[in-house]
Amino acid sequence: MTNIINHQIRLAGRPVGLPKLSDWDFTEAQMPDLQDGQVLVKIYYISVDPAMRAWMNDQDSYVPALKLGAVMRALTVGKVIASKNPAFSAGDFVAGMDGVQEYAISGGSLLMKADTSLAPLPAYLNSLGIAGLTAYCGLIEVGAPKLGETVVVSGAAGSVGAHVGQIAKIKGCRAVGIAGGAKKCAFLVDELGFDAAIDYKNEPLDAGLARTCPDGIDVFFDNVGGETLDAALARINFHARVVICGAISQYNNTTAIEGPSNYLSLLIRSARLEGFIYLNWRDQWPAMIAELAKWHGQGNLNCPDDIVEGGLKAFPDALLRLFSGDNFGKLMIKMAD
Amino acid sequence: MTNIINHQIRLAGRPVGLPKLSDWDFTEAQMPDLQDGQVLVKIYYISVDPAMRAWMNDQDSYVPALKLGAVMRALTVGKVIASKNPAFSAGDFVAGMDGVQEYAISGGSLLMKADTSLAPLPAYLNSLGIAGLTAYCGLIEVGAPKLGETVVVSGAAGSVGAHVGQIAKIKGCRAVGIAGGAKKCAFLVDELGFDAAIDYKNEPLDAGLARTCPDGIDVFFDNVGGETLDAALARINFHARVVICGAISQYNNTTAIEGPSNYLSLLIRSARLEGFIYLNWRDQWPAMIAELAKWHGQGNLNCPDDIVEGGLKAFPDALLRLFSGDNFGKLMIKMAD
Repeated sequence: MTNIINHQIRLAGRPVGLPKLSDWDFTEAQMPDLQDGQVLVKIYYISVDPAMRAWMNDQDSYVPALKLGAVMRALTVGKVIASKNPAFSAGDFVAGMDGVQEYAISGGSLLMKADTSLAPLPAYLNSLGIAGLTAYCGLIEVGAPKLGETVVVSGAAGSVGAHVGQIAKIKGCRAVGIAGGAKKCAFLVDELGFDAAIDYKNEPLDAGLARTCPDGIDVFFDNVGGETLDAALARINFHARVVICGAISQYNNTTAIEGPSNYLSLLIRSARLEGFIYLNWRDQWPAMIAELAKWHGQGNLNCPDDIVEGGLKAFPDALLRLFSGDNFGKLMIKMAD
Repeated sequence: MTNIINHQIRLAGRPVGLPKLSDWDFTEAQMPDLQDGQVLVKIYYISVDPAMRAWMNDQDSYVPALKLGAVMRALTVGKVIASKNPAFSAGDFVAGMDGVQEYAISGGSLLMKADTSLAPLPAYLNSLGIAGLTAYCGLIEVGAPKLGETVVVSGAAGSVGAHVGQIAKIKGCRAVGIAGGAKKCAFLVDELGFDAAIDYKNEPLDAGLARTCPDGIDVFFDNVGGETLDAALARINFHARVVICGAISQYNNTTAIEGPSNYLSLLIRSARLEGFIYLNWRDQWPAMIAELAKWHGQGNLNCPDDIVEGGLKAFPDALLRLFSGDNFGKLMIKMAD
């Protein structure tokens, strides 16, 4: 295997605001020999996620800051092509965190087998992967919605948001999505079964929330932050749960983060604002994936794969699509068939 | 009893910024006859609390907005001087929400008997009343501190803050207080048993928190808001609980509330920011008061009574002392002996 040349994208700069092409280095390297315990994976799809922007900063978060010169961190799915780890065999499909590159060698501790008889491989970055698991952990474990409650999700046409609304419906809640544009909103209601959608580009958020949530908001699942979070806080009910999954409106700020000026609604309503990361429930992922797969198989959990062709070179522009509101469904880069 | 003249303070204006004397009306009225089911209370002490500022706004909170012309809402302790309610007898000492006035008639539903053999009457606005109960509910029920954790409280020399630190110690936690001035800080450590104090007037908050919380913050009990909340959020631990009791730095804002710009620490640390009001645990108050009384009797729970003489006319200035950082302990107005 020493004759494999691996192409990689490495972090070259710390962006201020939106990432630029010059923040990336395109490199190639020969793959080293496999050591005992290691697994060699050929990457088929690379997940493109908003959290990547935070990983580029020189600040530890729930994971350490990425070092300059390191291969860009990314979730991936692929196929084991060689293994000196008894837990994996050549031919196994796996999901992992193998980075923005064509091949990866690891000890296997972050790899999980992906059963492609249950769903095609890209689903393991979508409904049976980061998108479905993030929605599951955040909505069910943190938001704890009760039958008949109103669940509102921002960034609803994104991969996590789409799952949040559908899981809310499965749990017997009213699901309201906030998204940008009539097409996305129609998709949420007509295709995914949301009860209502708010097109923030065409309706003030406060009016939209008043229209769609006459009984207030019990769970707000926030992917956006900024004025979206503030508008939701203004309408939360007693003992509401506000789940912070992300703050995509703030990730490329060149000034300070905008804090929620309506945070005292939490005091007035005895409510809660709570952050989470799906990694916290790693032990429970197999059971969660089994449930997600069941719902997916029943046709109750869908989210389009937004697959970008072109391999590594497509990555820098694909990442920017997350912040322009241009993507739709689960964004990923196709690396191999 | 129709010959009792009652002096009262009524809300005359909605303040912008700090309340002014012109926001109050001093009125007098003859007390009506007692109806069946009613209780007549002579008020001995009136509690002066930061929440009063919020009650003056034309905005419902956990209680409805006070109407212009209404007697100012206030917690009180006093003595039943006549009763047509079988649950109360003349001579009973009671705690209630009888307002800024000399006498009050009510149906008794908000009155609780105060056992003055257990502690003197002012204690029922202090350790066995709003201060102790607010600290108990917020720290134990919301903050849920575990043995050995670090609990930080802002406004620590205020009545709630003083109780929070002492209850944290009783629960086996490290207690750190934030207060203004060397005298208050020395009191917290030397008299109340806090492990450390930060004098925010003489030490930057971030440096003070780094000095006193080398292992980070597990529970932050916030009475202050603004930059105090932000400084604490920057140092919270994984799964920290940030309890919002108040935001005294923001109550007299004439511009928008300052939201916590470090709120994404909650995401990075899988932490929680939660508001509460001690009224939510009303059913459990008797058991909580019994426990507070036990700790008080053992000498482990102390907070000075900051008693202002002078009756009703002292109220407007006393309220302002809460916002100038001038008060120390539980502020109350003495109305009668």
